Amino acid sequence: MKKLINDPRNYVPEMLEGLVSAYPSLVLGGESGRCISRSTPARSGKVGIATGGGSGHLPLFTGYVGDGLLDACAIGNVFEGPSVQSCVDAIRAADHGAGVLCLFGNYGGDRMNFEMAAEMVELDEIVTETVLGADDVASAPPEEAEKRRGVAGIVLLYKVAGAAAEEGRSLADVAEVTRKAAAQTRSIGVALSPCRVPTASKPNFELGDSEMEMGMGIHGEPGIWRAPVASADEVADDMLDRLLAELQPPPGSRLVALVNGLGATPLEELFILYRRVAARLAERDMQIIAPLVGNYVTSMEMAGASLSLMVLDEELERLIRAPACCPFWQVSP
Amino acid sequence: MKKLINDPRNYVPEMLEGLVSAYPSLVLGGESGRCISRSTPARSGKVGIATGGGSGHLPLFTGYVGDGLLDACAIGNVFEGPSVQSCVDAIRAADHGAGVLCLFGNYGGDRMNFEMAAEMVELDEIVTETVLGADDVASAPPEEAEKRRGVAGIVLLYKVAGAAAEEGRSLADVAEVTRKAAAQTRSIGVALSPCRVPTASKPNFELGDSEMEMGMGIHGEPGIWRAPVASADEVADDMLDRLLAELQPPPGSRLVALVNGLGATPLEELFILYRRVAARLAERDMQIIAPLVGNYVTSMEMAGASLSLMVLDEELERLIRAPACCPFWQVSP
Repeated sequence: MKKLINDPRNYVPEMLEGLVSAYPSLVLGGESGRCISRSTPARSGKVGIATGGGSGHLPLFTGYVGDGLLDACAIGNVFEGPSVQSCVDAIRAADHGAGVLCLFGNYGGDRMNFEMAAEMVELDEIVTETVLGADDVASAPPEEAEKRRGVAGIVLLYKVAGAAAEEGRSLADVAEVTRKAAAQTRSIGVALSPCRVPTASKPNFELGDSEMEMGMGIHGEPGIWRAPVASADEVADDMLDRLLAELQPPPGSRLVALVNGLGATPLEELFILYRRVAARLAERDMQIIAPLVGNYVTSMEMAGASLSLMVLDEELERLIRAPACCPFWQVSP
Repeated sequence: MKKLINDPRNYVPEMLEGLVSAYPSLVLGGESGRCISRSTPARSGKVGIATGGGSGHLPLFTGYVGDGLLDACAIGNVFEGPSVQSCVDAIRAADHGAGVLCLFGNYGGDRMNFEMAAEMVELDEIVTETVLGADDVASAPPEEAEKRRGVAGIVLLYKVAGAAAEEGRSLADVAEVTRKAAAQTRSIGVALSPCRVPTASKPNFELGDSEMEMGMGIHGEPGIWRAPVASADEVADDMLDRLLAELQPPPGSRLVALVNGLGATPLEELFILYRRVAARLAERDMQIIAPLVGNYVTSMEMAGASLSLMVLDEELERLIRAPACCPFWQVSP
């Protein structure tokens, strides 16, 4: 598994240096040196949206810092949660006097560090609320939904939270609509090949030459079944059926669909999957609004894809369609 | 080399179906059924920009159909040039009464078919001009520049040509400024792993477990040297030195830099490469304008990257910065 890198220990700082050099709208700072925020901060009085997570998932997490999306992001090492200090940095950078929503994936380390950070910023009189991304249906059964991991669906939550904050709503309001969005969002992924953490000598898991694993997490966490690679239509059907079984959207529903590449899967294949998802939803009289097809949440060079769905109501559709601009996602008015 | 596809013979039509289903701004049509054009055509009197090429390179070619960019694209099978009929379809779809610039990569089949198509549309009284993308410095020495292949640099030519056409300039003018841009654009790529055409049983070339090939083309055409994988900085330096040796930009120059992923290379690695390119250009008192870092021209699941540079003058910079909007590239006013 070849990589175009320098000393693996410099992977994260060199990546961040390149990122902020390419995008002057982003600035790297904080006491930790591991916090990306907007170089032109949002207006005073806007609720801030802070996130954080491990590296190796670009454009997640930090690529979604921008107008109508995130204010700041705490950055960990590859596949490791951000430090407490970087979470503090992100909350502080996101604060514009109206409180900060901490919106991140449901992983133990990230939760613990954001919790400690939230306590520490109380001294600065910054009020926080927390919403977790926990959209991966493969990671726990519905009755243990609080154990589920956060995967690609969090990008859709960023959009909702960011747009609600831009509308000038209160922290409690922004948190409430983001929780509603989270309750209407589900994801599942399929892996075809592993990736390798730059400082490690081996891939993070093994898959046979013709095997795939349905439900695998974005760090290689075990999935639901492993079998020879199925056709794109079979894979799309399985993913879609699992999400619809939980979301139960009635005919006439409007949904966001995100067909996400995990890193090494060609865009062509993502469109072949999307085609099937759109056709099967249309058969059920459901319409996709604002489809997203591409690499939004990756695991470096992992091959595979995930499907995320969010069932919209009028409010969520307005927030999803609201203008937004970050280096990796633009929504025009 | 696993793929999430159905019957390999349906790869292109299913990919196109997904593409136009996801992006209502694109429409699939023409007598060939292999032409993508804007669903809302440009205004009458605008010079049309038509392109074409084989599939397997998304977002190239067809993803760049949109405002300020292309009007239409002829689509071939994977790594095969488009048919004469699809070239005719693309030229007709791009025609708004002011002539059509045919702008495509320098490959024998594509040239032959576009030439025949241009003759055929003369019967419809459509005037055409042709500009070739031939930016790959690894594919022939400078004294045989007319033999060079077109690679990722063509995306920058689309931007220049599209913006010039939007300014209301004549066909001759649009062709002239696009030729100037082509003369100021060079690219080189490095491959770390092969890809596989869906209907083929084997990868398109072989590379050892720790080998890379500098200068390899986007279909696996032979490069300049093959050696164990070098560091990102060494690779960036080699690519940059080769492009600067030809372009010879004086200190104070302003350039576009495109650090392009070939399909399976993580965005993190592209930013590590970009960081080095930007730093070395800054040392020489050269500034990057409007950097592009991402998967703009791919070879399905090939791992590797390419670097393209365009040296700007005032006119080219204005055209590069002009607003544009297609599914895979947005430039805001």
